[in-house]
Amino acid sequence: MKLISFERNGKASYGVVVGERVIDLGKTFGGQYPTLRDLLAAGLDKIGDPSRYEADCAVADVKLLTPITNPAHIWCLAVNYADHHKEVESAGRVQDLPKEPAVFARYIDTFVAHGEDIWHPGVSEQFDYEGELAVVIGKEGYRIKAEDAFEHVAGYTILNDGSVRDWQFHTRQITPGKNFYRSGSIGPWIVTADEIGNPYDLRIDTRLNGELLQSDKAELMLHKIPRFIEYVSTMAPLQPGDILATGTPSGVGFSRKPPVWMRAGDTCEISIEKIGMLGNRIVQP
Amino acid sequence: MKLISFERNGKASYGVVVGERVIDLGKTFGGQYPTLRDLLAAGLDKIGDPSRYEADCAVADVKLLTPITNPAHIWCLAVNYADHHKEVESAGRVQDLPKEPAVFARYIDTFVAHGEDIWHPGVSEQFDYEGELAVVIGKEGYRIKAEDAFEHVAGYTILNDGSVRDWQFHTRQITPGKNFYRSGSIGPWIVTADEIGNPYDLRIDTRLNGELLQSDKAELMLHKIPRFIEYVSTMAPLQPGDILATGTPSGVGFSRKPPVWMRAGDTCEISIEKIGMLGNRIVQP
Repeated sequence: MKLISFERNGKASYGVVVGERVIDLGKTFGGQYPTLRDLLAAGLDKIGDPSRYEADCAVADVKLLTPITNPAHIWCLAVNYADHHKEVESAGRVQDLPKEPAVFARYIDTFVAHGEDIWHPGVSEQFDYEGELAVVIGKEGYRIKAEDAFEHVAGYTILNDGSVRDWQFHTRQITPGKNFYRSGSIGPWIVTADEIGNPYDLRIDTRLNGELLQSDKAELMLHKIPRFIEYVSTMAPLQPGDILATGTPSGVGFSRKPPVWMRAGDTCEISIEKIGMLGNRIVQP
Repeated sequence: MKLISFERNGKASYGVVVGERVIDLGKTFGGQYPTLRDLLAAGLDKIGDPSRYEADCAVADVKLLTPITNPAHIWCLAVNYADHHKEVESAGRVQDLPKEPAVFARYIDTFVAHGEDIWHPGVSEQFDYEGELAVVIGKEGYRIKAEDAFEHVAGYTILNDGSVRDWQFHTRQITPGKNFYRSGSIGPWIVTADEIGNPYDLRIDTRLNGELLQSDKAELMLHKIPRFIEYVSTMAPLQPGDILATGTPSGVGFSRKPPVWMRAGDTCEISIEKIGMLGNRIVQP
């Protein structure tokens, strides 16, 4: 299933995409489960067989929102691909290869949905893309063991961890450069785990104005998904709708010679096999 | 005014503390402004003169919640006092004195209220206190200039930035050690800015089991409140109810010889002049 959150006629809802059509599940479940996060918490088995629903409208008729609009946590990983670590090093940002997941947090207002405009930070030229596979938690859990981790995964989506490089390196804490308003994106939808199979087989392709700049398989990630889930759930309980961004492969803009920065007017598209394409234009607000 | 969020008879509300009594503002405004954050957004002038309200109950009759239960952002500063920087350095955690605010994020579920139990992390012995003055935002603002910053401050509260030191230093990103569930506290209330005067005159005293371990004035902070507000509001709009933790003075446990750690059964109390005392017991859940 492809799960979306969306707005139609000014009203927020959520549902399932089937082909080019949308089933509005908010119509059926919204009274009891106001958001997709609440439905995830109740369990996706509440939906039953999508074929029992009539489609309500075309995908083109809705304005997509980030698939989860109100996550309790968004946990992200820095330098989680060896080749990306090398390019960070070569750009003069020396860091040891992290022995544990290098976790930082991003607030939800730093993301826009598929098709929405990403805001150029303005105060910096050094605005970079980072294509990533993101895990969406379905079942809450505290101190989850790695071997049980996949039981807690509802599905997968695409995330652009848009980064303001100079602000990221003001101090050792990269959080500021990762938390500019509307500087990243998530979407277009969550594809449930049953349709993905092995997530490490997925290839992540990032294109800026059509040019392919990142293309690696998720199998190259250093700290794999179970370890990531184990680690962050040791800190605090994971909740349904939590988003875990698994880090970006090599090919980011700041380590290229000359560097490649996102500018107003550019279009950034991230494609992941079996999920789809997350595309956004960059604008100067 | 002293603003609180609380629970009474199982129902969440918010109000004003006058002496030992509570005025339940949720009773008056809750339909329109469900939480204290919403009332802050509408403007505290909605309250008018507190003397026009009858008190509803004693402070002892309510269970305090964190003063803001649902902030959009909690921004915290690392190494924002020179003497604390020295002790971090002497403990072998060398860092340059940060030229810009060293910002990290903490999610709200890492905090409990005044009087609630703080959870020992269990997976680590290195559980440390950090007494801090916290700023509560009243008026939203994007790219606020330092000279206008205090217009956006509703008031001040006390924050224990409880830290799991080994997890804080797993990588360069201190976020994990700062985001353990129920590992810190905020409260007991927000004292509005008009009653504080100059926030830099305030002394921050941290006691563990009655022993005074931190005692410095807020004037020693390196990046002052206006710069902190300017910096984080350059990233993303500040919203009413956002909490800005201004960093801890010297005297934390991990740089003491031998180190002082919080253990189950301990009581940590942070007092700030003109605000009050934030006290919590540490328990092994």
